[in-house]
Amino acid sequence: MQDNEVLYMGIDGGGTKCRVRIESADGRLLGCGIGGTANPSHGMKIVIDSILDATDMALAEANLGGERIKDLVVGAGLAGLHLPTYFSAVAGWQHPFRQLYLSDDLEVANLGAHGGGDGAVIIVGTGFSSVAMVGNHKRVIGGHGFLMGERCSGSWIGHQAVQVALLDQDGLGPKTRLTDLLEAKFNGRGAMLANALVGFAAKDFAAIAPLVFEAAALKDEVANKILDNSAQFVAQVAKLLLESKPPRLCLVGSIAERLSDRLEPHIAKAVVPLMEQPESGAIYLARNEFSNTMAANRKP
Amino acid sequence: MQDNEVLYMGIDGGGTKCRVRIESADGRLLGCGIGGTANPSHGMKIVIDSILDATDMALAEANLGGERIKDLVVGAGLAGLHLPTYFSAVAGWQHPFRQLYLSDDLEVANLGAHGGGDGAVIIVGTGFSSVAMVGNHKRVIGGHGFLMGERCSGSWIGHQAVQVALLDQDGLGPKTRLTDLLEAKFNGRGAMLANALVGFAAKDFAAIAPLVFEAAALKDEVANKILDNSAQFVAQVAKLLLESKPPRLCLVGSIAERLSDRLEPHIAKAVVPLMEQPESGAIYLARNEFSNTMAANRKP
Repeated sequence: MQDNEVLYMGIDGGGTKCRVRIESADGRLLGCGIGGTANPSHGMKIVIDSILDATDMALAEANLGGERIKDLVVGAGLAGLHLPTYFSAVAGWQHPFRQLYLSDDLEVANLGAHGGGDGAVIIVGTGFSSVAMVGNHKRVIGGHGFLMGERCSGSWIGHQAVQVALLDQDGLGPKTRLTDLLEAKFNGRGAMLANALVGFAAKDFAAIAPLVFEAAALKDEVANKILDNSAQFVAQVAKLLLESKPPRLCLVGSIAERLSDRLEPHIAKAVVPLMEQPESGAIYLARNEFSNTMAANRKP
Repeated sequence: MQDNEVLYMGIDGGGTKCRVRIESADGRLLGCGIGGTANPSHGMKIVIDSILDATDMALAEANLGGERIKDLVVGAGLAGLHLPTYFSAVAGWQHPFRQLYLSDDLEVANLGAHGGGDGAVIIVGTGFSSVAMVGNHKRVIGGHGFLMGERCSGSWIGHQAVQVALLDQDGLGPKTRLTDLLEAKFNGRGAMLANALVGFAAKDFAAIAPLVFEAAALKDEVANKILDNSAQFVAQVAKLLLESKPPRLCLVGSIAERLSDRLEPHIAKAVVPLMEQPESGAIYLARNEFSNTMAANRKP
Protein backbone atom coordinates (compact mmCIF):
# COMPACT_ATOMS: atom_id res chain seq x y z
CA MET A 1 0.00 0.00 0.00
CA GLN A 2 1.26 3.46 -0.89
CA ASP A 3 0.20 5.68 1.95
CA ASN A 4 0.80 8.86 0.01
CA GLU A 5 -2.03 7.98 -2.36
CA VAL A 6 -4.68 7.95 0.36
CA LEU A 7 -6.96 10.96 0.64
CA TYR A 8 -9.56 11.41 3.37
CA MET A 9 -13.03 12.78 2.78
CA GLY A 10 -15.66 13.62 5.36
CA ILE A 11 -19.35 13.94 4.46
CA ASP A 12 -21.95 15.68 6.58
CA GLY A 13 -25.27 14.73 5.05
CA GLY A 14 -28.17 16.77 6.40
CA GLY A 15 -31.79 16.89 5.43
CA THR A 16 -31.31 19.76 2.99
CA LYS A 17 -27.61 19.91 2.05
CA CYS A 18 -24.52 17.73 2.19
CA ARG A 19 -21.07 19.19 2.80
CA VAL A 20 -17.81 17.40 2.09
CA ARG A 21 -14.19 18.10 2.95
CA ILE A 22 -11.08 16.43 1.52
CA GLU A 23 -7.81 16.26 3.45
CA SER A 24 -4.41 14.81 2.67
CA ALA A 25 -3.12 11.90 4.73
CA ASP A 26 -1.16 14.38 6.86
CA GLY A 27 -4.24 16.48 7.60
CA ARG A 28 -3.99 19.41 5.20
CA LEU A 29 -7.32 20.74 3.87
CA LEU A 30 -7.36 20.22 0.09
CA GLY A 31 -10.92 21.14 -0.93
CA CYS A 32 -14.56 21.45 0.06
CA GLY A 33 -17.82 20.83 -1.75
CA ILE A 34 -21.54 21.11 -1.28
CA GLY A 35 -24.48 19.15 -2.71
CA GLY A 36 -28.19 18.59 -2.16
CA THR A 37 -29.80 16.51 0.58
CA ALA A 38 -28.15 13.19 1.43
CA ASN A 39 -31.01 11.96 3.62
CA PRO A 40 -32.13 8.60 2.19
CA SER A 41 -35.76 9.38 3.04
CA HIS A 42 -35.70 11.31 -0.24
CA GLY A 43 -34.55 8.21 -2.14
CA MET A 44 -31.13 6.69 -2.92
CA LYS A 45 -30.76 8.43 -6.30
CA ILE A 46 -30.79 11.83 -4.59
CA VAL A 47 -28.32 10.66 -1.94
CA ILE A 48 -25.84 9.41 -4.56
CA ASP A 49 -26.24 12.46 -6.80
CA SER A 50 -25.78 14.84 -3.86
CA ILE A 51 -22.66 13.07 -2.57
CA LEU A 52 -21.05 12.77 -6.02
CA ASP A 53 -21.83 16.41 -6.89
CA ALA A 54 -20.19 17.57 -3.68
CA THR A 55 -17.23 15.22 -4.21
CA ASP A 56 -16.64 16.53 -7.77
CA MET A 57 -16.68 20.07 -6.46
CA ALA A 58 -14.21 19.28 -3.69
CA LEU A 59 -11.82 17.36 -6.00
CA ALA A 60 -11.90 20.27 -8.46
CA GLU A 61 -11.19 22.80 -5.70
CA ALA A 62 -8.29 20.57 -4.63
CA ASN A 63 -6.96 20.56 -8.23
CA LEU A 64 -7.23 16.76 -8.23
CA GLY A 65 -8.42 14.75 -11.24
CA GLY A 66 -11.78 12.98 -11.09
CA GLU A 67 -9.97 9.61 -11.17
CA ARG A 68 -8.67 10.29 -7.64
CA ILE A 69 -12.18 9.46 -6.37
CA LYS A 70 -10.93 5.85 -6.08
CA ASP A 71 -8.30 6.96 -3.54
CA LEU A 72 -10.77 8.60 -1.19
CA VAL A 73 -11.22 7.01 2.22
CA VAL A 74 -14.60 8.39 3.16
CA GLY A 75 -16.42 8.86 6.44
CA ALA A 76 -20.07 9.74 5.94
CA GLY A 77 -22.52 10.86 8.59
CA LEU A 78 -25.94 10.96 6.99
CA ALA A 79 -29.26 12.09 8.48
CA GLY A 80 -31.61 9.15 8.95
CA LEU A 81 -28.88 6.50 8.95
CA HIS A 82 -29.63 5.37 12.50
CA LEU A 83 -32.84 3.89 11.02
CA PRO A 84 -32.15 0.35 9.75
CA THR A 85 -34.29 0.89 6.62
CA TYR A 86 -32.08 3.74 5.48
CA PHE A 87 -28.79 2.29 6.68
CA SER A 88 -29.23 -0.84 4.59
CA ALA A 89 -30.25 1.20 1.53
CA VAL A 90 -27.02 3.23 1.67
CA ALA A 91 -24.86 0.24 2.65
CA GLY A 92 -25.93 -1.44 -0.61
CA TRP A 93 -24.46 1.39 -2.73
CA GLN A 94 -21.71 0.25 -5.13
CA HIS A 95 -19.72 3.39 -4.35
CA PRO A 96 -16.62 4.53 -6.30
CA PHE A 97 -14.46 5.27 -3.22
CA ARG A 98 -11.57 3.29 -1.78
CA GLN A 99 -13.51 2.85 1.44
CA LEU A 100 -16.83 4.17 2.72
CA TYR A 101 -17.53 4.15 6.46
CA LEU A 102 -21.13 4.99 7.35
CA SER A 103 -22.59 6.61 10.40
CA ASP A 104 -25.37 9.06 11.17
CA ASP A 105 -25.14 12.86 11.10
CA LEU A 106 -25.26 12.85 14.89
CA GLU A 107 -22.02 10.94 15.45
CA VAL A 108 -20.01 13.07 13.02
CA ALA A 109 -21.50 16.29 14.39
CA ASN A 110 -20.43 15.22 17.88
CA LEU A 111 -16.93 14.17 16.74
CA GLY A 112 -16.49 17.53 14.99
CA ALA A 113 -17.99 19.66 17.74
CA HIS A 114 -15.56 18.32 20.34
CA GLY A 115 -12.46 17.79 18.18
CA GLY A 116 -12.87 14.02 18.29
CA GLY A 117 -13.48 13.93 22.05
CA ASP A 118 -16.44 13.41 24.36
CA GLY A 119 -19.38 15.77 24.55
CA ALA A 120 -22.98 16.33 23.59
CA VAL A 121 -24.64 17.93 20.57
CA ILE A 122 -28.16 18.94 19.67
CA ILE A 123 -28.77 19.15 15.91
CA VAL A 124 -31.52 21.58 14.97
CA GLY A 125 -31.41 21.88 11.22
CA THR A 126 -33.93 20.49 8.79
CA GLY A 127 -34.44 17.75 11.38
CA PHE A 128 -33.75 17.25 15.07
CA SER A 129 -31.59 14.75 16.91
CA SER A 130 -29.20 14.82 19.85
CA VAL A 131 -26.63 12.73 21.66
CA ALA A 132 -24.37 12.76 24.72
CA MET A 133 -21.19 10.65 24.40
CA VAL A 134 -19.14 10.25 27.58
CA GLY A 135 -16.68 7.34 27.57
CA ASN A 136 -18.70 4.25 26.74
CA HIS A 137 -21.94 5.98 27.72
CA LYS A 138 -24.14 7.11 24.82
CA ARG A 139 -27.55 8.71 25.21
CA VAL A 140 -29.55 9.53 22.09
CA ILE A 141 -32.68 11.69 22.21
CA GLY A 142 -34.87 12.27 19.17
CA GLY A 143 -33.75 11.60 15.65
CA HIS A 144 -37.00 9.84 14.81
CA GLY A 145 -37.54 11.68 11.56
CA PHE A 146 -39.88 14.32 10.13
CA LEU A 147 -42.76 15.14 12.49
CA MET A 148 -41.84 12.21 14.74
CA GLY A 149 -41.62 13.09 18.41
CA GLU A 150 -39.86 16.41 18.02
CA ARG A 151 -40.94 19.99 18.33
CA CYS A 152 -38.07 22.16 17.28
CA SER A 153 -36.56 21.42 13.84
CA GLY A 154 -36.75 23.61 10.75
CA SER A 155 -39.18 21.21 9.12
CA TRP A 156 -41.35 21.16 12.25
CA ILE A 157 -41.35 24.97 12.43
CA GLY A 158 -42.27 25.22 8.73
CA HIS A 159 -45.02 22.66 9.16
CA GLN A 160 -46.38 24.58 12.16
CA ALA A 161 -46.46 27.73 10.04
CA VAL A 162 -48.69 26.01 7.49
CA GLN A 163 -51.00 24.70 10.23
CA VAL A 164 -51.50 28.05 11.91
CA ALA A 165 -52.11 29.74 8.53
CA LEU A 166 -54.75 27.18 7.53
CA LEU A 167 -56.43 27.36 10.95
CA ASP A 168 -56.42 31.17 10.74
CA GLN A 169 -58.00 31.07 7.26
CA ASP A 170 -60.68 28.64 8.42
CA GLY A 171 -61.52 30.83 11.44
CA LEU A 172 -60.29 28.08 13.76
CA GLY A 173 -57.14 29.74 15.06
CA PRO A 174 -55.73 33.17 15.93
CA LYS A 175 -54.83 35.71 13.26
CA THR A 176 -51.19 35.60 12.17
CA ARG A 177 -49.00 37.35 9.62
CA LEU A 178 -47.90 33.89 8.50
CA THR A 179 -51.18 33.61 6.58
CA ASP A 180 -50.21 36.48 4.27
CA LEU A 181 -46.55 35.48 4.11
CA LEU A 182 -47.47 31.95 3.02
CA GLU A 183 -50.09 33.22 0.58
CA ALA A 184 -47.44 35.41 -1.04
CA LYS A 185 -44.90 32.58 -1.18
CA PHE A 186 -47.27 29.96 -2.61
CA ASN A 187 -49.68 32.19 -4.56
CA GLY A 188 -52.67 30.85 -2.73
CA ARG A 189 -54.52 30.30 0.51
CA GLY A 190 -56.79 27.60 1.96
CA ALA A 191 -57.23 24.70 -0.45
CA MET A 192 -54.83 26.31 -2.95
CA LEU A 193 -52.12 26.52 -0.31
CA ALA A 194 -52.76 22.90 0.71
CA ASN A 195 -52.63 21.94 -2.96
CA ALA A 196 -49.26 23.67 -3.41
CA LEU A 197 -47.90 21.59 -0.53
CA VAL A 198 -48.94 18.18 -1.88
CA GLY A 199 -45.91 15.89 -1.78
CA PHE A 200 -43.87 18.27 0.38
CA ALA A 201 -41.01 16.55 2.21
CA ALA A 202 -39.10 17.56 5.35
CA LYS A 203 -36.69 19.83 3.47
CA ASP A 204 -39.56 21.62 1.74
CA PHE A 205 -41.20 22.42 5.05
CA ALA A 206 -37.82 23.47 6.46
CA ALA A 207 -37.57 26.00 3.62
CA ILE A 208 -40.68 27.68 5.09
CA ALA A 209 -39.07 28.17 8.52
CA PRO A 210 -37.39 31.48 7.58
CA LEU A 211 -40.88 33.00 7.20
CA VAL A 212 -41.55 32.18 10.86
CA PHE A 213 -38.39 34.02 11.93
CA GLU A 214 -39.47 36.89 9.64
CA ALA A 215 -42.96 37.04 11.15
CA ALA A 216 -41.52 36.79 14.67
CA ALA A 217 -39.24 39.75 13.96
CA LEU A 218 -42.41 41.68 13.02
CA LYS A 219 -43.71 40.83 16.52
CA ASP A 220 -46.27 38.29 15.29
CA GLU A 221 -47.46 36.51 18.44
CA VAL A 222 -48.24 33.20 16.77
CA ALA A 223 -44.81 33.02 15.13
CA ASN A 224 -43.07 33.97 18.37
CA LYS A 225 -44.97 31.26 20.20
CA ILE A 226 -43.86 28.63 17.66
CA LEU A 227 -40.23 29.67 18.11
CA ASP A 228 -40.45 29.98 21.90
CA ASN A 229 -41.95 26.48 22.09
CA SER A 230 -39.12 25.19 19.90
CA ALA A 231 -36.49 26.81 22.11
CA GLN A 232 -38.21 25.43 25.21
CA PHE A 233 -38.10 21.96 23.66
CA VAL A 234 -34.38 22.36 22.91
CA ALA A 235 -33.82 23.44 26.53
CA GLN A 236 -35.66 20.36 27.78
CA VAL A 237 -33.43 18.17 25.59
CA ALA A 238 -30.31 20.01 26.83
CA LYS A 239 -31.28 19.37 30.46
CA LEU A 240 -31.60 15.62 29.80
CA LEU A 241 -28.26 15.49 27.96
CA LEU A 242 -26.51 17.40 30.76
CA GLU A 243 -27.54 14.61 33.16
CA SER A 244 -24.83 12.52 31.41
CA LYS A 245 -22.22 15.16 32.49
CA PRO A 246 -20.73 15.73 29.02
CA PRO A 247 -17.61 17.95 29.19
CA ARG A 248 -19.06 20.13 26.43
CA LEU A 249 -22.51 20.81 24.87
CA CYS A 250 -22.98 22.33 21.40
CA LEU A 251 -25.92 23.30 19.22
CA VAL A 252 -25.41 22.44 15.55
CA GLY A 253 -27.50 23.01 12.44
CA SER A 254 -28.99 25.70 10.28
CA ILE A 255 -31.34 27.20 12.89
CA ALA A 256 -29.26 26.47 15.99
CA GLU A 257 -27.99 30.01 16.33
CA ARG A 258 -31.35 31.70 15.79
CA LEU A 259 -33.00 29.46 18.39
CA SER A 260 -30.23 29.84 20.95
CA ASP A 261 -31.21 33.51 21.47
CA ARG A 262 -34.46 32.21 22.95
CA LEU A 263 -32.98 29.66 25.40
CA GLU A 264 -33.33 30.15 29.14
CA PRO A 265 -30.14 31.91 30.35
CA HIS A 266 -28.78 28.98 32.41
CA ILE A 267 -29.13 26.64 29.42
CA ALA A 268 -27.70 29.21 27.00
CA LYS A 269 -24.68 29.51 29.36
CA ALA A 270 -24.04 25.76 29.17
CA VAL A 271 -23.75 25.86 25.38
CA VAL A 272 -20.22 26.28 23.95
CA PRO A 273 -19.07 26.91 20.37
CA LEU A 274 -18.19 24.08 17.97
CA MET A 275 -14.52 23.18 17.62
CA GLU A 276 -14.96 21.88 14.10
CA GLN A 277 -17.78 21.36 11.64
CA PRO A 278 -19.54 17.98 11.21
CA GLU A 279 -17.70 17.25 7.93
CA SER A 280 -14.45 17.42 9.90
CA GLY A 281 -16.02 15.05 12.40
CA ALA A 282 -16.67 12.69 9.47
CA ILE A 283 -12.94 12.79 8.70
CA TYR A 284 -12.20 11.66 12.27
CA LEU A 285 -14.53 8.76 11.55
CA ALA A 286 -12.76 7.93 8.27
CA ARG A 287 -9.28 8.06 9.85
CA ASN A 288 -10.26 5.99 12.91
CA GLU A 289 -12.06 3.33 10.91
CA PHE A 290 -9.38 3.14 8.20
CA SER A 291 -6.58 2.66 10.72
CA ASN A 292 -8.65 -0.12 12.35
CA THR A 293 -9.13 -1.74 8.91
CA MET A 294 -5.40 -1.50 8.18
CA ALA A 295 -4.52 -2.94 11.62
CA ALA A 296 -6.90 -5.83 11.08
CA ASN A 297 -5.36 -6.52 7.64
CA ARG A 298 -1.86 -6.63 9.13
CA LYS A 299 -2.83 -9.47 11.47
CA PRO A 300 -1.37 -12.84 10.30
CA MET B 1 -81.07 5.98 -25.94
CA GLN B 2 -82.72 3.05 -24.19
CA ASP B 3 -83.49 4.30 -20.70
CA ASN B 4 -84.02 0.82 -19.30
CA GLU B 5 -80.36 0.04 -19.84
CA VAL B 6 -79.12 2.80 -17.56
CA LEU B 7 -77.88 1.85 -14.09
CA TYR B 8 -76.77 4.35 -11.46
CA MET B 9 -73.77 3.86 -9.24
CA GLY B 10 -72.64 6.03 -6.34
CA ILE B 11 -69.06 5.97 -5.02
CA ASP B 12 -68.01 7.27 -1.63
CA GLY B 13 -64.22 7.31 -1.73
CA GLY B 14 -62.66 7.89 1.67
CA GLY B 15 -59.08 7.87 2.79
CA THR B 16 -59.16 4.20 3.78
CA LYS B 17 -62.10 2.53 1.97
CA CYS B 18 -64.41 3.19 -0.94
CA ARG B 19 -68.03 2.07 -0.90
CA VAL B 20 -70.25 1.81 -3.96
CA ARG B 21 -73.96 1.27 -4.47
CA ILE B 22 -75.78 0.38 -7.70
CA GLU B 23 -79.42 1.28 -8.26
CA SER B 24 -81.81 0.71 -11.14
CA ALA B 25 -83.14 3.72 -13.05
CA ASP B 26 -86.27 3.57 -10.91
CA GLY B 27 -84.32 3.68 -7.66
CA ARG B 28 -84.19 0.06 -6.49
CA LEU B 29 -80.99 -1.02 -4.70
CA LEU B 30 -79.33 -3.72 -6.81
CA GLY B 31 -75.95 -4.28 -5.12
CA CYS B 32 -73.20 -2.83 -2.95
CA GLY B 33 -69.44 -3.21 -2.95
CA ILE B 34 -66.39 -2.13 -1.02
CA GLY B 35 -62.78 -1.54 -2.02
CA GLY B 36 -59.58 0.04 -0.71
CA THR B 37 -58.78 3.77 -0.52
CA ALA B 38 -59.87 5.94 -3.44
CA ASN B 39 -57.95 9.02 -2.29
CA PRO B 40 -55.62 10.01 -5.15
CA SER B 41 -52.92 11.07 -2.68
CA HIS B 42 -52.09 7.35 -2.64
CA GLY B 43 -51.66 7.30 -6.45
CA MET B 44 -54.03 6.78 -9.37
CA LYS B 45 -53.38 3.04 -9.66
CA ILE B 46 -54.79 2.51 -6.17
CA VAL B 47 -57.81 4.71 -6.91
CA ILE B 48 -58.66 2.78 -10.09
CA ASP B 49 -58.09 -0.63 -8.49
CA SER B 50 -60.21 0.26 -5.46
CA ILE B 51 -63.10 1.58 -7.55
CA LEU B 52 -63.05 -1.34 -9.98
CA ASP B 53 -62.82 -3.91 -7.16
CA ALA B 54 -65.83 -2.38 -5.45
CA THR B 55 -67.72 -2.13 -8.76
CA ASP B 56 -67.09 -5.82 -9.56
CA MET B 57 -68.36 -6.77 -6.12
CA ALA B 58 -71.52 -4.68 -6.51
CA LEU B 59 -72.26 -5.96 -10.04
CA ALA B 60 -71.83 -9.53 -8.79
CA GLU B 61 -74.12 -8.92 -5.83
CA ALA B 62 -76.66 -7.47 -8.28
CA ASN B 63 -76.38 -10.62 -10.45
CA LEU B 64 -75.29 -8.43 -13.35
CA GLY B 65 -72.59 -9.45 -15.84
CA GLY B 66 -69.28 -7.57 -15.83
CA GLU B 67 -70.09 -6.13 -19.27
CA ARG B 68 -72.84 -4.00 -17.68
CA ILE B 69 -70.06 -1.73 -16.36
CA LYS B 70 -70.48 0.26 -19.59
CA ASP B 71 -74.11 1.05 -18.64
CA LEU B 72 -73.22 2.56 -15.28
CA VAL B 73 -73.85 6.26 -14.83
CA VAL B 74 -71.53 6.99 -11.95
CA GLY B 75 -71.35 9.74 -9.36
CA ALA B 76 -68.10 9.67 -7.42
CA GLY B 77 -67.25 11.69 -4.33
CA LEU B 78 -63.58 11.14 -3.61
CA ALA B 79 -61.50 12.44 -0.70
CA GLY B 80 -58.94 14.97 -1.89
CA LEU B 81 -60.78 15.86 -5.10
CA HIS B 82 -61.28 19.49 -4.10
CA LEU B 83 -57.53 19.87 -4.65
CA PRO B 84 -56.82 20.69 -8.32
CA THR B 85 -53.79 18.37 -8.43
CA TYR B 86 -55.91 15.36 -7.56
CA PHE B 87 -58.99 16.41 -9.51
CA SER B 88 -57.08 16.59 -12.76
CA ALA B 89 -55.40 13.24 -12.08
CA VAL B 90 -58.77 11.49 -11.73
CA ALA B 91 -60.42 13.48 -14.55
CA GLY B 92 -57.79 12.04 -16.91
CA TRP B 93 -58.86 8.45 -16.20
CA GLN B 94 -60.09 6.54 -19.31
CA HIS B 95 -62.86 4.96 -17.24
CA PRO B 96 -65.06 2.09 -18.46
CA PHE B 97 -68.38 3.64 -17.35
CA ARG B 98 -71.09 5.26 -19.46
CA GLN B 99 -70.57 8.50 -17.56
CA LEU B 100 -68.45 9.51 -14.60
CA TYR B 101 -69.32 12.64 -12.65
CA LEU B 102 -66.68 13.70 -10.15
CA SER B 103 -66.97 15.55 -6.88
CA ASP B 104 -65.37 15.40 -3.47
CA ASP B 105 -66.39 13.18 -0.57
CA LEU B 106 -67.79 16.22 1.20
CA GLU B 107 -70.46 17.01 -1.39
CA VAL B 108 -71.75 13.44 -1.60
CA ALA B 109 -71.70 13.05 2.19
CA ASN B 110 -73.79 16.20 2.46
CA LEU B 111 -76.22 15.10 -0.29
CA GLY B 112 -76.64 11.72 1.42
CA ALA B 113 -76.89 13.05 4.96
CA HIS B 114 -79.78 15.35 4.09
CA GLY B 115 -81.55 13.22 1.46
CA GLY B 116 -80.40 15.50 -1.35
CA GLY B 117 -81.38 18.69 0.51
CA ASP B 118 -79.57 21.47 2.32
CA GLY B 119 -77.57 20.97 5.48
CA ALA B 120 -74.10 20.70 6.95
CA VAL B 121 -71.76 17.76 7.55
CA ILE B 122 -68.51 17.27 9.35
CA ILE B 123 -66.49 14.29 8.09
CA VAL B 124 -64.20 12.78 10.71
CA GLY B 125 -62.85 9.60 9.24
CA THR B 126 -59.32 9.01 8.04
CA GLY B 127 -59.32 12.73 7.22
CA PHE B 128 -61.31 15.78 8.22
CA SER B 129 -63.41 18.17 6.16
CA SER B 130 -66.73 19.94 6.57
CA VAL B 131 -69.29 22.00 4.68
CA ALA B 132 -72.52 23.92 5.17
CA MET B 133 -74.75 24.13 2.06
CA VAL B 134 -77.76 26.43 2.34
CA GLY B 135 -79.30 27.49 -0.98
CA ASN B 136 -76.48 29.03 -2.99
CA HIS B 137 -74.39 29.55 0.11
CA LYS B 138 -71.51 27.12 0.61
CA ARG B 139 -69.01 27.29 3.44
CA VAL B 140 -66.16 24.78 3.50
CA ILE B 141 -63.91 24.37 6.54
CA GLY B 142 -60.88 22.10 6.54
CA GLY B 143 -60.28 19.42 3.96
CA HIS B 144 -56.66 20.46 3.50
CA GLY B 145 -55.28 16.94 3.73
CA PHE B 146 -53.21 14.86 6.13
CA LEU B 147 -51.81 16.92 9.01
CA MET B 148 -52.88 20.14 7.31
CA GLY B 149 -54.74 22.56 9.56
CA GLU B 150 -56.87 19.98 11.34
CA ARG B 151 -56.84 18.47 14.78
CA CYS B 152 -59.45 15.75 14.86
CA SER B 153 -59.24 13.10 12.10
CA GLY B 154 -58.31 9.45 12.56
CA SER B 155 -54.96 10.03 10.88
CA TRP B 156 -54.27 13.03 13.12
CA ILE B 157 -55.20 11.04 16.25
CA GLY B 158 -52.96 8.14 15.15
CA HIS B 159 -50.12 10.55 14.41
CA GLN B 160 -50.55 12.16 17.82
CA ALA B 161 -50.32 8.71 19.43
CA VAL B 162 -46.94 8.15 17.81
CA GLN B 163 -45.70 11.58 18.92
CA VAL B 164 -46.68 11.15 22.55
CA ALA B 165 -45.14 7.64 22.65
CA LEU B 166 -41.83 8.87 21.20
CA LEU B 167 -41.77 11.87 23.55
CA ASP B 168 -42.52 9.57 26.51
CA GLN B 169 -39.70 7.19 25.51
CA ASP B 170 -37.26 10.08 25.17
CA GLY B 171 -38.22 11.44 28.59
CA LEU B 172 -39.63 14.57 26.94
CA GLY B 173 -43.32 13.96 27.59
CA PRO B 174 -45.69 12.43 30.14
CA LYS B 175 -45.98 8.66 30.62
CA THR B 176 -48.73 7.07 28.59
CA ARG B 177 -50.04 3.56 27.96
CA LEU B 178 -49.80 4.36 24.24
CA THR B 179 -46.06 3.71 24.50
CA ASP B 180 -46.63 0.04 25.35
CA LEU B 181 -49.59 -0.33 23.00
CA LEU B 182 -47.53 0.98 20.07
CA GLU B 183 -44.52 -1.08 21.04
CA ALA B 184 -46.70 -4.21 21.00
CA LYS B 185 -48.26 -3.29 17.64
CA PHE B 186 -45.00 -2.45 15.87
CA ASN B 187 -42.57 -4.72 17.74
CA GLY B 188 -40.35 -1.85 18.71
CA ARG B 189 -39.92 1.47 20.46
CA GLY B 190 -37.88 4.64 19.87
CA ALA B 191 -35.87 4.44 16.67
CA MET B 192 -37.34 1.01 15.86
CA LEU B 193 -40.86 2.40 16.11
CA ALA B 194 -39.89 5.38 13.94
CA ASN B 195 -38.31 2.95 11.48
CA ALA B 196 -41.52 0.89 11.30
CA LEU B 197 -43.42 4.04 10.39
CA VAL B 198 -41.18 5.11 7.49
CA GLY B 199 -43.41 5.81 4.49
CA PHE B 200 -46.63 5.73 6.53
CA ALA B 201 -49.51 7.52 4.83
CA ALA B 202 -52.70 9.03 6.25
CA LYS B 203 -54.59 5.72 6.24
CA ASP B 204 -51.74 3.97 8.06
CA PHE B 205 -51.80 6.55 10.84
CA ALA B 206 -55.59 6.34 10.94
CA ALA B 207 -55.24 2.61 11.59
CA ILE B 208 -53.44 3.52 14.85
CA ALA B 209 -56.38 5.64 16.12
CA PRO B 210 -58.22 2.65 17.67
CA LEU B 211 -55.30 2.27 20.12
CA VAL B 212 -56.01 5.79 21.38
CA PHE B 213 -59.65 4.91 22.04
CA GLU B 214 -58.41 1.73 23.75
CA ALA B 215 -55.95 3.61 25.96
CA ALA B 216 -58.59 6.24 26.75
CA ALA B 217 -61.00 3.52 27.88
CA LEU B 218 -58.23 2.40 30.28
CA LYS B 219 -58.29 5.96 31.69
CA ASP B 220 -54.97 6.96 30.15
CA GLU B 221 -54.79 10.73 30.62
CA VAL B 222 -52.68 11.43 27.55
CA ALA B 223 -55.03 9.45 25.29
CA ASN B 224 -58.08 11.12 26.79
CA LYS B 225 -56.54 14.52 26.20
CA ILE B 226 -55.91 13.74 22.53
CA LEU B 227 -59.55 12.70 22.09
CA ASP B 228 -60.95 15.61 24.12
CA ASN B 229 -58.90 18.04 22.02
CA SER B 230 -60.25 16.40 18.89
CA ALA B 231 -63.83 16.68 20.08
CA GLN B 232 -63.25 20.29 21.07
CA PHE B 233 -61.95 20.98 17.57
CA VAL B 234 -65.04 19.33 16.05
CA ALA B 235 -67.24 21.47 18.30
CA GLN B 236 -65.43 24.61 17.15
CA VAL B 237 -66.04 23.61 13.52
CA ALA B 238 -69.71 22.86 14.29
CA LYS B 239 -70.19 26.34 15.79
CA LEU B 240 -68.80 27.97 12.65
CA LEU B 241 -70.99 25.84 10.36
CA LEU B 242 -74.11 26.61 12.44
CA GLU B 243 -73.53 30.33 11.70
CA SER B 244 -74.79 29.49 8.17
CA LYS B 245 -78.11 28.28 9.71
CA PRO B 246 -78.15 24.86 7.99
CA PRO B 247 -81.48 23.06 8.57
CA ARG B 248 -79.56 19.95 9.66
CA LEU B 249 -76.03 19.10 10.91
CA CYS B 250 -74.55 15.57 10.75
CA LEU B 251 -71.27 13.95 11.74
CA VAL B 252 -70.04 11.40 9.20
CA GLY B 253 -67.06 9.07 9.09
CA SER B 254 -65.45 6.19 10.88
CA ILE B 255 -64.76 7.94 14.19
CA ALA B 256 -67.72 10.37 14.15
CA GLU B 257 -69.75 8.36 16.63
CA ARG B 258 -66.94 7.76 19.09
CA LEU B 259 -66.01 11.44 19.11
CA SER B 260 -69.61 12.64 19.46
CA ASP B 261 -69.75 11.23 23.02
CA ARG B 262 -67.18 13.86 23.95
CA LEU B 263 -68.90 16.90 22.41
CA GLU B 264 -70.20 19.70 24.62
CA PRO B 265 -73.92 18.97 25.28
CA HIS B 266 -75.30 21.94 23.33
CA ILE B 267 -73.27 20.94 20.25
CA ALA B 268 -74.14 17.25 20.64
CA LYS B 269 -77.83 18.29 20.73
CA ALA B 270 -77.50 20.10 17.40
CA VAL B 271 -76.25 16.95 15.65
CA VAL B 272 -78.89 14.79 13.93
CA PRO B 273 -78.60 11.33 12.35
CA LEU B 274 -77.78 10.80 8.67
CA MET B 275 -80.73 10.21 6.33
CA GLU B 276 -78.61 8.20 3.88
CA GLN B 277 -75.00 7.18 3.50
CA PRO B 278 -72.52 9.12 1.32
CA GLU B 279 -72.67 6.51 -1.47
CA SER B 280 -76.39 7.26 -1.77
CA GLY B 281 -75.47 10.94 -1.91
CA ALA B 282 -73.21 10.08 -4.84
CA ILE B 283 -76.22 8.57 -6.61
CA TYR B 284 -78.07 11.89 -6.20
CA LEU B 285 -75.06 13.47 -7.90
CA ALA B 286 -75.15 10.91 -10.75
CA ARG B 287 -78.90 11.33 -11.34
CA ASN B 288 -78.79 15.14 -11.22
CA GLU B 289 -75.80 15.44 -13.53
CA PHE B 290 -77.04 12.80 -15.97
CA SER B 291 -80.43 14.45 -16.35
CA ASN B 292 -78.62 17.77 -17.00
CA THR B 293 -76.46 16.06 -19.63
CA MET B 294 -79.52 14.51 -21.28
CA ALA B 295 -81.37 17.83 -21.24
CA ALA B 296 -78.39 19.59 -22.81
CA ASN B 297 -78.18 16.91 -25.52
CA ARG B 298 -81.85 17.35 -26.39
CA LYS B 299 -81.32 21.01 -27.23
CA PRO B 300 -81.35 21.68 -30.97
